[in-house]
Amino acid sequence: MGNSFGKAFRITTWGESHGGGVGVVIDGCPARLPISLEEIQLELDRRRPGQSDLTTPRQEEDRVQILSGIFEGQTLGTPISLMVWNKDAKPESYAPFKDTFRPSHADYTYEAKYGIRNWMGGGRASARETIGRVAAAVLARKWLAQQYGLEILAWVERVHDLRSSVDPETVSREQIEANLVRCPDALAAEKMAERIRWAKDQGDSVGGVVTVVARNVPPGLGEPVFDKLEAELAKALMSLPAVKGVEIGSGFEGTLLTGSQHNDPFEMRDGKVRTLKNHSGGVQGGISNGENILMRVAFKPTSTIFKAQQTVDNQGQNVVLEAQGRHDPCVLPRAVPIVEAMVGLVLMDHTLRQRAQNG
Amino acid sequence: MGNSFGKAFRITTWGESHGGGVGVVIDGCPARLPISLEEIQLELDRRRPGQSDLTTPRQEEDRVQILSGIFEGQTLGTPISLMVWNKDAKPESYAPFKDTFRPSHADYTYEAKYGIRNWMGGGRASARETIGRVAAAVLARKWLAQQYGLEILAWVERVHDLRSSVDPETVSREQIEANLVRCPDALAAEKMAERIRWAKDQGDSVGGVVTVVARNVPPGLGEPVFDKLEAELAKALMSLPAVKGVEIGSGFEGTLLTGSQHNDPFEMRDGKVRTLKNHSGGVQGGISNGENILMRVAFKPTSTIFKAQQTVDNQGQNVVLEAQGRHDPCVLPRAVPIVEAMVGLVLMDHTLRQRAQNG
Amino acid sequence: MGNSFGKAFRITTWGESHGGGVGVVIDGCPARLPISLEEIQLELDRRRPGQSDLTTPRQEEDRVQILSGIFEGQTLGTPISLMVWNKDAKPESYAPFKDTFRPSHADYTYEAKYGIRNWMGGGRASARETIGRVAAAVLARKWLAQQYGLEILAWVERVHDLRSSVDPETVSREQIEANLVRCPDALAAEKMAERIRWAKDQGDSVGGVVTVVARNVPPGLGEPVFDKLEAELAKALMSLPAVKGVEIGSGFEGTLLTGSQHNDPFEMRDGKVRTLKNHSGGVQGGISNGENILMRVAFKPTSTIFKAQQTVDNQGQNVVLEAQGRHDPCVLPRAVPIVEAMVGLVLMDHTLRQRAQNG
Amino acid sequence: MGNSFGKAFRITTWGESHGGGVGVVIDGCPARLPISLEEIQLELDRRRPGQSDLTTPRQEEDRVQILSGIFEGQTLGTPISLMVWNKDAKPESYAPFKDTFRPSHADYTYEAKYGIRNWMGGGRASARETIGRVAAAVLARKWLAQQYGLEILAWVERVHDLRSSVDPETVSREQIEANLVRCPDALAAEKMAERIRWAKDQGDSVGGVVTVVARNVPPGLGEPVFDKLEAELAKALMSLPAVKGVEIGSGFEGTLLTGSQHNDPFEMRDGKVRTLKNHSGGVQGGISNGENILMRVAFKPTSTIFKAQQTVDNQGQNVVLEAQGRHDPCVLPRAVPIVEAMVGLVLMDHTLRQRAQNG
Repeated sequence: MGNSFGKAFRITTWGESHGGGVGVVIDGCPARLPISLEEIQLELDRRRPGQSDLTTPRQEEDRVQILSGIFEGQTLGTPISLMVWNKDAKPESYAPFKDTFRPSHADYTYEAKYGIRNWMGGGRASARETIGRVAAAVLARKWLAQQYGLEILAWVERVHDLRSSVDPETVSREQIEANLVRCPDALAAEKMAERIRWAKDQGDSVGGVVTVVARNVPPGLGEPVFDKLEAELAKALMSLPAVKGVEIGSGFEGTLLTGSQHNDPFEMRDGKVRTLKNHSGGVQGGISNGENILMRVAFKPTSTIFKAQQTVDNQGQNVVLEAQGRHDPCVLPRAVPIVEAMVGLVLMDHTLRQRAQNG
Repeated sequence: MGNSFGKAFRITTWGESHGGGVGVVIDGCPARLPISLEEIQLELDRRRPGQSDLTTPRQEEDRVQILSGIFEGQTLGTPISLMVWNKDAKPESYAPFKDTFRPSHADYTYEAKYGIRNWMGGGRASARETIGRVAAAVLARKWLAQQYGLEILAWVERVHDLRSSVDPETVSREQIEANLVRCPDALAAEKMAERIRWAKDQGDSVGGVVTVVARNVPPGLGEPVFDKLEAELAKALMSLPAVKGVEIGSGFEGTLLTGSQHNDPFEMRDGKVRTLKNHSGGVQGGISNGENILMRVAFKPTSTIFKAQQTVDNQGQNVVLEAQGRHDPCVLPRAVPIVEAMVGLVLMDHTLRQRAQNG
Repeated sequence: MGNSFGKAFRITTWGESHGGGVGVVIDGCPARLPISLEEIQLELDRRRPGQSDLTTPRQEEDRVQILSGIFEGQTLGTPISLMVWNKDAKPESYAPFKDTFRPSHADYTYEAKYGIRNWMGGGRASARETIGRVAAAVLARKWLAQQYGLEILAWVERVHDLRSSVDPETVSREQIEANLVRCPDALAAEKMAERIRWAKDQGDSVGGVVTVVARNVPPGLGEPVFDKLEAELAKALMSLPAVKGVEIGSGFEGTLLTGSQHNDPFEMRDGKVRTLKNHSGGVQGGISNGENILMRVAFKPTSTIFKAQQTVDNQGQNVVLEAQGRHDPCVLPRAVPIVEAMVGLVLMDHTLRQRAQNG
Repeated sequence: MGNSFGKAFRITTWGESHGGGVGVVIDGCPARLPISLEEIQLELDRRRPGQSDLTTPRQEEDRVQILSGIFEGQTLGTPISLMVWNKDAKPESYAPFKDTFRPSHADYTYEAKYGIRNWMGGGRASARETIGRVAAAVLARKWLAQQYGLEILAWVERVHDLRSSVDPETVSREQIEANLVRCPDALAAEKMAERIRWAKDQGDSVGGVVTVVARNVPPGLGEPVFDKLEAELAKALMSLPAVKGVEIGSGFEGTLLTGSQHNDPFEMRDGKVRTLKNHSGGVQGGISNGENILMRVAFKPTSTIFKAQQTVDNQGQNVVLEAQGRHDPCVLPRAVPIVEAMVGLVLMDHTLRQRAQNG
């Protein structure tokens, strides 16, 4: 009972990785937004598996279908239902996990919570579930772009201990998409690709950090005191598989500064109230201040590995699991469009919520 | 329009720092929970200002009043209304900020959002707002303790760059309350206290990290895919004033491990499925696994400082602000009970939600 | 866990009839709405007990206090907390009901649900709970009046079997307030007053029907398919104590017509799409069409009577109850402002919700 | 933004009458409920068009597909996605309504609200939207039956002015399904069928009243003060197309009684607190008391008729509309399973909500 997100732009996702399909229902999308199947497909292509040797070899075309809510190329204001059929499901490769809990996966906790689980794949805990989020966010992001020129860009900042150097003010989609890792620092990207292939060869995995920036965010978004913008963004990002940490602006590092170092002085610039720097990350008191929103997201190394691991089965026996199959040795390249999507969903929802009270 | 939190145990807070008072309405508290005014007061005393020279000298007794929902010492199942009057308000000391936006405060963003703000204090952005959260959480925490022996403890792990060493498995409330900083590492605590006094003397401020552990959490809490337990906890904690980052389990550090290092092997222990270590931080796939929930929270240095700062006024003029008044040179000691409260609210809400489907 | 109403203009009421007080928190009220204590008090005076010999002699001044959210005569956009202390509580007169369930009251069902109840009065089931609704609605109605000239008027259409004749197009607040019954048909009002006094003399009670009209409602309000305008209005009105039925437009009578008789033809009038008649009651397909919203509400005869009644006690014994005390022999005159309030809350909420998507 | 219903058992419906299809996502269904496709199909067959000469000749097989949430014949606790493709759509027959607003339909109000509508059919205002509600309610009703033996039965009580006589205590599903009208009074049913055929021959339509009873409802359901059981039921039923009025228990008629006539005395029966009669309709103070829940629902005559009607087009011209096509001359026989469904959804939702606080 937690499969909906947003209060004014509300999405509900459904589907297991190996059931009939996965999809999303969007409620609250403004009417008369022009949207095409191709625009949605484009983003799904960015997140789909099988893009390169850095991602899982599972081959899913992830062709999206529009089931309702769009008429003659425009949204109707009614619920938009989008779905993708599961095609390249290989439940047989999950047979070993039918009775055995994979370490650091959701197998045990789903069993503990529901007393049943679809063992033919990751079920709802699969990253496949995020298809609906990405599809829904296409509409949100298009609307925000139309209304404000708002733009959201994420990229891989770090893989394992390999850092990169990227300027959030100027980085472009083209730079991000220029390599398979989605790290706009080309040199770093190359090393990261190598590291990911190394992990793959070992049957192991690596994690890292994704950074996301939202530019041209209007001031005034966010609903204190609980639905502060950074709180909703944190929730959105922490709801993604494999995320273990989130920070905004100066984040954990900022705690090493004093207040006089940390505070962002205001100045008038082009007739607007602006800050001289952006330790705040674009949000003050839970409300956007018009500066870039800047966040960092920690993704743990993928839980699916192919080394022998100690675990237990559902009969309460200690066993050793040696799995084989398909997996992402590093989720970060595919996480980039998903992180962008979540930020888009939050900003869309809060823009509509802000309009409710001030429209 | 974001002043409520929780779906099954739902709190709504109200009040500005310098209006009549602050309070909370709790909807969804189970009936027949024994509760006394004193139990609530005790927690408010832990967070109230004026406790020591490390906190703001604002003197507020913060005497809580029960307005409804409790009858003959027990909850009725109906809304519980609690409030505290504002006493030691000194609106005159806020006069300089009437027209001037304090850097990294919420002055500008509230003005941008609402076109009006209560300038006689921090308004809703004041930490004073958290009184209602702490009061409400007393009921949540008592119920969780009764039902599961569940226990939530937070402490100051770091102030500025001063670290401490604390074992989350064994740390006790007594150790935390043993000093004014609320850092159970006594040696570190002493240095931290000095650092805070140093900042105070400078008219400056320092931040740091609070760690929180929840012990005896039953498995099965959390509602994928959006209301995952860590997502809700992240939102709860990021909704606190001054928080810039949140992590669970291995957090950002964990991204430096490989999957085989990071995964938490399972074993049977005392007839239960347990993990050998706890990089997961007690949550897997968004659902509690019965291990300790472990989180870290980054608090920036307080925005209120008494050094000259560049800023603008509401006429769009660049000005220099030299404030005086009362402030917390470091919010962390007082943040401890507030962090505990937020974790308690989330766990309570999710326990009730879990019961809805499985009760 | 059902003490909040509305999604964009959200109120949460609290308080028992004989606890400390009753109140409401409003979240989502647009900022900068001018409002005074007196405006709120005026409406509370319309619903308070002790107005005349037709209502309960309980004397409550019902002086409202503003605890937050209003600053220098304007709303802040933050939660507005309003409360009224309970004064003339006489818990001793409820002693006979401590162990005995009054027929057709909520005594038994509250006990069945919560295992406890505040027996010193009607608790949350008391009409006293509606104070918060009425107070909150003052802000909603003022805003709607400012924005659209929207006006909501209710009146007593029938008491027991005594009917009246009133034109919803032209009836005015003055006509409604011209007599104690709040029936603008003066002749009928007189007979109704007599009937109410007759019931009072008998220790009995009577019910009837309240009609309500909303004029100058903009087209487009209502959120199909579940939050249709008439559905939300029905819920709002059925949530009032003693209401047993609700209808809109032609209602139950309309089922005796054929489609060709019932349909409301459209015509252009003053450049607007209008209907020639209004069997629809101002709502079509769940959305307002710009015509007057017209509803009828059935109030049962008050459950509190002073005749001997068969019942049971909480020990499971059959007993006879002969109550004494204070009561309303007919709730309808005092129900008028409450019905208006509920319609105002729904229209406000839906106006804000409509703005979210189209603002 | 109103396409979800329920807080603990939450359904979201999507789909237009002439888009790709219609469907529902259910969030919050308890895990491990055994359910088959056939059980769901059975209820859809009761509401589908083309059942007899009394309903629209539109031929839709309405074959339901399970897309997620059910695994090996049991619910998973994850979202259940169900859908039906639109087959016998004849958008060409809607061409005359592309620019012209059908009187008392939702054409004008959708246009006013969204600035666009899918004119190829009734869009979301079509009764076709209720497919998802009925499908979802199958799971709710099965669970309630398993847990409590709870049973919900609706029937046609009146068509136009033709009344029937039915005992809600004893009426059975078999009696209801014994004729095409779904009126268990066989004699009345025959006359009703004639009346419906008469209306059809005239190109006209008739309305009437559906009664619904829920038996074996446990005491304690309902969440005062806003989510009272009767309030939620009223909302649920008023959200159905063509409903203009709802009443519970004594309803509008009950307002003609005095309190002493109306009150339901309590007595002990079989060790339980029971009432001697049931003017309350099974709900007191917003909470079920264990007696049968009894409601009546007024359905207006269908708006689709084939007589000439005055109306306007979207250019603001007065025009005469003479429609042809397929329609239900009386929606009541097909409304019976839909009314049952809505009551089932509310009772399920409130049972789960009740368990949250007391489970």
